[in-house]
Amino acid sequence: MTDNAVEFNGQTITKGDLLYEGKAKQVFATSDPAILWMHYMDQVTALNGKVKEEYAGKGQLNSNISNRLFTYLASKGVTHHWLGSVSATDELVKKVDIIPLEVVTRNYTAGHFVSRFGVEPMQKLTPRVQELYYKSDELDDPFMNQSQAISLGFASEADLKTIFALADEVNELLVALFEQIDITLIDYKLEFGRLADGQIILADELSPDNMRLVDQKTGKSLDKDVFRQKQGDLRVGYQDVLERLEDVLK
Amino acid sequence: MTDNAVEFNGQTITKGDLLYEGKAKQVFATSDPAILWMHYMDQVTALNGKVKEEYAGKGQLNSNISNRLFTYLASKGVTHHWLGSVSATDELVKKVDIIPLEVVTRNYTAGHFVSRFGVEPMQKLTPRVQELYYKSDELDDPFMNQSQAISLGFASEADLKTIFALADEVNELLVALFEQIDITLIDYKLEFGRLADGQIILADELSPDNMRLVDQKTGKSLDKDVFRQKQGDLRVGYQDVLERLEDVLK
Ligand SMILES: Nc1ncnc2c1ncn2[C@@H]1O[C@H](COP(=O)(O)OP(=O)(O)OP(=O)(O)O)[C@@H](O)[C@H]1O
Ligand SMILES: Nc1ncnc2c1ncn2[C@@H]1O[C@H](COP(=O)(O)OP(=O)(O)OP(=O)(O)O)[C@@H](O)[C@H]1O
Ligand SMILES: [Mg+2]
Ligand SMILES: [Mg+2]
Repeated sequence: MTDNAVEFNGQTITKGDLLYEGKAKQVFATSDPAILWMHYMDQVTALNGKVKEEYAGKGQLNSNISNRLFTYLASKGVTHHWLGSVSATDELVKKVDIIPLEVVTRNYTAGHFVSRFGVEPMQKLTPRVQELYYKSDELDDPFMNQSQAISLGFASEADLKTIFALADEVNELLVALFEQIDITLIDYKLEFGRLADGQIILADELSPDNMRLVDQKTGKSLDKDVFRQKQGDLRVGYQDVLERLEDVLK
Repeated sequence: MTDNAVEFNGQTITKGDLLYEGKAKQVFATSDPAILWMHYMDQVTALNGKVKEEYAGKGQLNSNISNRLFTYLASKGVTHHWLGSVSATDELVKKVDIIPLEVVTRNYTAGHFVSRFGVEPMQKLTPRVQELYYKSDELDDPFMNQSQAISLGFASEADLKTIFALADEVNELLVALFEQIDITLIDYKLEFGRLADGQIILADELSPDNMRLVDQKTGKSLDKDVFRQKQGDLRVGYQDVLERLEDVLK
């Protein structure tokens, strides 16, 4: 096998054209039209790409954490896009039509929620808060509600019911998992997509790039906030998260 | 009867202390703890009060339009707070605990919705869009979703169901009414409150201060946008709306 081909389910999957280069990942076509090849980059961005830096090994950490979390969720019955790893930084995923909505779950107050509503940070939210953002770089990913998403044609009422039920299932599982390793899952972003048959599944990544994780012992951030707030090398926290996950996920 | 007392339902209602002075209305206590006395001011504001001007007779126009619209809605079965007029600018209303949410319905794209989501103005929204804003001058009335409103304790899930069902009922009735007088109801804000027994009813005002109304013949605004966009004397449009409503509401 070369760097551009991998044996998968008895067939050879070859890496094809670069379809999309985002802020954190490159997405390639493959010889199988239902499969994409994702490469995790070492680049870290903040403020919708306005701040950018390279951290060697960051892509590898995110790929590894993401794959572990997808595998854990699958073992609990959650359907997602991850098919298998190709290398430390590359993976195969089921191709979906991404629903252009970022689905945010908040278990504790933080970030924009705090300034927007004038509340204290790190307060438990009961029940958890669910939010939608319209994935649009030009518009700066505006916050939107369900009624807007329906009327603008991004998803039907039934789609949103499915998405929020899946998000709640994921939330219960992730909160419990992180609790076991003394980490509080403050908030995070999920993306969902549609398979060719219409089924809506969890896609994209599950990594500290898209989550707020706080160490319950030290109160320190183990996520991209370390970069956003210039608190040092974000890889230290990511590595810590990975090691704790490795411990608990056999 | 003096200017501070009125006969109502066989009892004399006397105007009491000023409880609240907002941007458009003064709210007074009365001799009956379940009744408030509202005075419509001539002041017009924009940008959350940063721009302010006086238009003699504006309060009278809004009071009159609001009362006619409340009476129309009541004739169709909608429960609201309006009890009766005291003078051209003053009215008695049922005292409620205002739910601190502005409930916006959009039938066509306009205003913030256009810039936020990068859509064309004056496009029909199907279905209509419903939005919530947290009534907070300090925070500039931030847009919020149902999940946030529930978690922050502003309303229960059941309350929001009631509120949005009432808002939809009002919307169908108002759209049909304005259609009859060749006016397109673009969008508008409602407020709801709780009576002592817990019932949620429509409160506040229904006037061109809180609505976007467009004349179907000329395409011109008949609402506060005339003031916001410095297009002349807003009273011309308000007077036009009032006269058309008088025509059709016998
Ligand atoms: N299974 C999938 N099928 C197709 N596209 C996917 C799948 N999973 C994720 N994607 C998309 O692949 C891209 C991943 O790139 P990356 O995370 O770097 O994007 P980004 O910079 O966050 O920007 P944006 O998400 O706004 O495009 C995203 O656009 C994501 O929505
Ligand atoms: N039936 C009612 N009982 C009690 N309060 C009411 C009732 N109807 C409306 N109100 C409240 O009375 C006030 C009316 O004043 P006005 O419309 O000038 O306020 P505003 O400047 O719009 O500011 P805000 O609504 O943010 O207080 C509002 O606070 C409104 O919520
Ligand atoms: Mg991304
Ligand atoms: Mg008001």
